Amino acid sequence: MPHVSQRGNDMPASPIRRLVKYANQAASRGVKVYRLNIGQPDVPTPQAAFDALKKIDRKVLEYSPSEGLLSLREKLREYYKRFNIDVDVDDIIITTGGSEAVLFAFMACLDPGDEIIVPEPAYANYMAFAISAGAKIVTVPSSIENGFELPPVEEFEKLITPRTKGILICNPNNPTGYLYTMKEMLQLRDLVKKHDLFLFSDEVYREFCYTGAPYISAFHLPGIEEQVVLIDSVSKRYNECGIRIGALITKNKELKANVMKFCQARLSPPLLGQIVAEASIDTPAEYMLETYNEYVERRKFLVDRINRIPGCYTPIPMGAFYTVVKLPVDDAEKFCIWCLTEFEHEGQTVFMAPASGFYATPGMGRDEVRMAYVLNREDLGKAMDTLEKALEAYPGRTL
Amino acid sequence: MPHVSQRGNDMPASPIRRLVKYANQAASRGVKVYRLNIGQPDVPTPQAAFDALKKIDRKVLEYSPSEGLLSLREKLREYYKRFNIDVDVDDIIITTGGSEAVLFAFMACLDPGDEIIVPEPAYANYMAFAISAGAKIVTVPSSIENGFELPPVEEFEKLITPRTKGILICNPNNPTGYLYTMKEMLQLRDLVKKHDLFLFSDEVYREFCYTGAPYISAFHLPGIEEQVVLIDSVSKRYNECGIRIGALITKNKELKANVMKFCQARLSPPLLGQIVAEASIDTPAEYMLETYNEYVERRKFLVDRINRIPGCYTPIPMGAFYTVVKLPVDDAEKFCIWCLTEFEHEGQTVFMAPASGFYATPGMGRDEVRMAYVLNREDLGKAMDTLEKALEAYPGRTL
Repeated sequence: MPHVSQRGNDMPASPIRRLVKYANQAASRGVKVYRLNIGQPDVPTPQAAFDALKKIDRKVLEYSPSEGLLSLREKLREYYKRFNIDVDVDDIIITTGGSEAVLFAFMACLDPGDEIIVPEPAYANYMAFAISAGAKIVTVPSSIENGFELPPVEEFEKLITPRTKGILICNPNNPTGYLYTMKEMLQLRDLVKKHDLFLFSDEVYREFCYTGAPYISAFHLPGIEEQVVLIDSVSKRYNECGIRIGALITKNKELKANVMKFCQARLSPPLLGQIVAEASIDTPAEYMLETYNEYVERRKFLVDRINRIPGCYTPIPMGAFYTVVKLPVDDAEKFCIWCLTEFEHEGQTVFMAPASGFYATPGMGRDEVRMAYVLNREDLGKAMDTLEKALEAYPGRTL
Repeated sequence: MPHVSQRGNDMPASPIRRLVKYANQAASRGVKVYRLNIGQPDVPTPQAAFDALKKIDRKVLEYSPSEGLLSLREKLREYYKRFNIDVDVDDIIITTGGSEAVLFAFMACLDPGDEIIVPEPAYANYMAFAISAGAKIVTVPSSIENGFELPPVEEFEKLITPRTKGILICNPNNPTGYLYTMKEMLQLRDLVKKHDLFLFSDEVYREFCYTGAPYISAFHLPGIEEQVVLIDSVSKRYNECGIRIGALITKNKELKANVMKFCQARLSPPLLGQIVAEASIDTPAEYMLETYNEYVERRKFLVDRINRIPGCYTPIPMGAFYTVVKLPVDDAEKFCIWCLTEFEHEGQTVFMAPASGFYATPGMGRDEVRMAYVLNREDLGKAMDTLEKALEAYPGRTL
């Protein structure tokens, strides 16, 4: 029998995925599972998206251009203008979700053995895409104690080698909810400029900034315009994760040509998703505002509630719809599994993502979980009641 | 400025893509361009596909499972049964087009430096996906003189090294239209069995077999069930290339687990495409028969017409909707460009794909083009009239 690839064996199996099985088993036992484990919000997709599908007037669902529909790219250019991001239509390449944008960014920038530096905790799939490209992710730890702010730039600089090709950030951040400040962004700017690096900036949560602090795009930073690779997706802002439409944005002509070869190999991004995405950009401001206000309320509610549970702590997330929570437990992964397999309170339990899956450094995040506030407030409340009871009953409690 | 990846630089720029620019320039000069260059048929997508979009009754266009919707995988299992392909629902992994199935097959089976052997001419993007995976495609030439039949198995065997991990075929074949015989398939079976290889079999054109000769799936071959990696796509059979739904099918548990990691990293295949694909599988038999009959007629018409043009020759394609044609010209790529830039006849010209792009061996296919019979017969007729006039006028004619 031929062997499968070592590359695939090296891919991390997501701990969340492993826990999904337990969550489904709990649900099939009749237990109500509050799922805070994944960024799949319950907010409805805009009506305009469904209307666009009903209005399709084509005889053939044919290939779209490899770089995406021109009309969608034009709409996106206007959309980015609202955020003071000034890009040409030709700078915008439509991808199959933000996922493909990350993969193609890595494929087009990194050769096997090349390295990028990422603050951890970080979105776990960056690691998977780096392994796909044969590249290495080197992490700089950030800490819950100071709210996951950017680690000192000297910590990045210490890790730079001749193989370092870039820095990757997610802003606002998944999983921490941190929003990088202008000062931090300028430090990153100086760093990538000094060392001739790419700055990969995943900004898919830009619509969700809650504190009044400004959202600073990597494209707002003067002097590194050609080094920025922006990752975007419509999934979160219009709650249409399933349509798989994202974008890779670069002003670097050489990089654009390189990325386009990967785009052409896979022929085209999904046509129907592009039609939906285009319609969604025109969605009335009220939809965005309502969604935003909903998250503001949920965030306030959740953070207040968590920090009143004895032994629990979460910093106040500034953006996105996640927060990392420190729990008074021996091992958060064990605790999460225990909640799904051995615990229930009034027929209910809670599904959280162990934070260890977002760290590359072994042992980090061992007493932390990520919660996504993607449920309505009533369910969030019940989830927190359940968590409190679970912590009281859990044998591995440390406080 | 940081450098882009060597990997991306190594990706071949498709010669067809370069010619598209000339075709569009010709069109914008008012010249009618008959596009035989790409497998984008003019046959309408089934009405059931559009109806399914209108009937969507969801509040959220959410992530689907990473392996695809269960209901679609169940439909596909039944579909494959019609072709005597007996697979479990769990053997079927839905991908973003056949393209992603090829990429994931390579990523999950091949490590950098690993090799697969492919008869040439071959679908050009296999090369791009191999480069993405850091793997090497080694080609065995087939020849227009014997209708692109499978090269002698000894020719494959000569190329096997310790790094050889698999054989890749496309059956029915793009670009040649060849349909592998049972004898040839059994030879391949013996080869992969003897040398412990994967057999990657791209069978997306199975609905289009014209000669009465049977379609032999790699899954029909006894004794290598766990070595077969079947690539599939709904794009061609329902003419919905834009929805990006394909499948990777394997009975190999270890490989399945490996592929699933790549699937999970990209979260999910496109939801809307899956809804359309599922509806399309139920499309009435008349649709398939009508489409089939249309291709039968086009094929007969095109092959007859080509072989009556002095100096032109094409074997009779047995499947798919392409044929490779030998032209009496010094350089088919030059000729194709000349047709688009310097020639027109009664305001018309023709766009063909130079076959050199389908060969890895330099110099091969130099006087060959690939034609896709994806236009209606009237347009095919005009295209051939134009080709005949072009050959009469072309300064590099060799006959």
